[in-house]
Amino acid sequence: MFSLHPTLASDTSHIADLTLSCVLIMKDKGFPWLILVPKREGVREIHELTPDDRALLIEEVSLASTLLTRLFTPVKINIGALGNIVPQLHVHVIARFENDRAWPGPVWGSGPKELYSEAELASIVSRLREAFNRA
Amino acid sequence: MFSLHPTLASDTSHIADLTLSCVLIMKDKGFPWLILVPKREGVREIHELTPDDRALLIEEVSLASTLLTRLFTPVKINIGALGNIVPQLHVHVIARFENDRAWPGPVWGSGPKELYSEAELASIVSRLREAFNRA
Repeated sequence: MFSLHPTLASDTSHIADLTLSCVLIMKDKGFPWLILVPKREGVREIHELTPDDRALLIEEVSLASTLLTRLFTPVKINIGALGNIVPQLHVHVIARFENDRAWPGPVWGSGPKELYSEAELASIVSRLREAFNRA
Repeated sequence: MFSLHPTLASDTSHIADLTLSCVLIMKDKGFPWLILVPKREGVREIHELTPDDRALLIEEVSLASTLLTRLFTPVKINIGALGNIVPQLHVHVIARFENDRAWPGPVWGSGPKELYSEAELASIVSRLREAFNRA
């Protein structure tokens, strides 16, 4: 039985379900920002996953990184599993640009979210869903 | 031919050589902070590694996370691959505590490093080397 932490659910929109993880987009226009959540109840740390799940996780992170690179041509991908505030294991995969609001610092704690309009969110969600569906 | 980026070399001390990565400790007393650097020249992103190397990487990250947890009993492990400043692919694995200087924010950009004394650095390096040697 897997359920998404309420903070993750409210901050994101759903993009795709992969073998291990569900893929979410953070509703922050400042960055093309995906979050992968392994569908395993009660796991907080990567070392608590089984080796098979870890192998899946890094391939799914790599896929998210590849698709963000293809769609948005960032100068760098940032990957992070922090969980200091939301304990459910989740991995951020973020496309970074030299003119984004946090560059070259980390995105976490970089100030208030920039909200997508409904149309903007629908557009990026659609592009990302298509990319994951084709992958 | 693998060489360590000069910034990584100067900010760290060497702990261990694993199959894929060399393990370094960041010389910042604020956090038990390891950095894993895959010994592959010219790689900047996780998706540029081969699948076999990615599988090794996440197992080595998981080992680092397990050993930090065993030695320091943190409340959370933080893992990150950013590379906005130092392009060589490197993965941070950091033990976090509710009373550390950045909690609950990320360690990156959390202010000036706290320097170890020579004796303190020698002690933590020795504990970590022994833990990796036994693993």
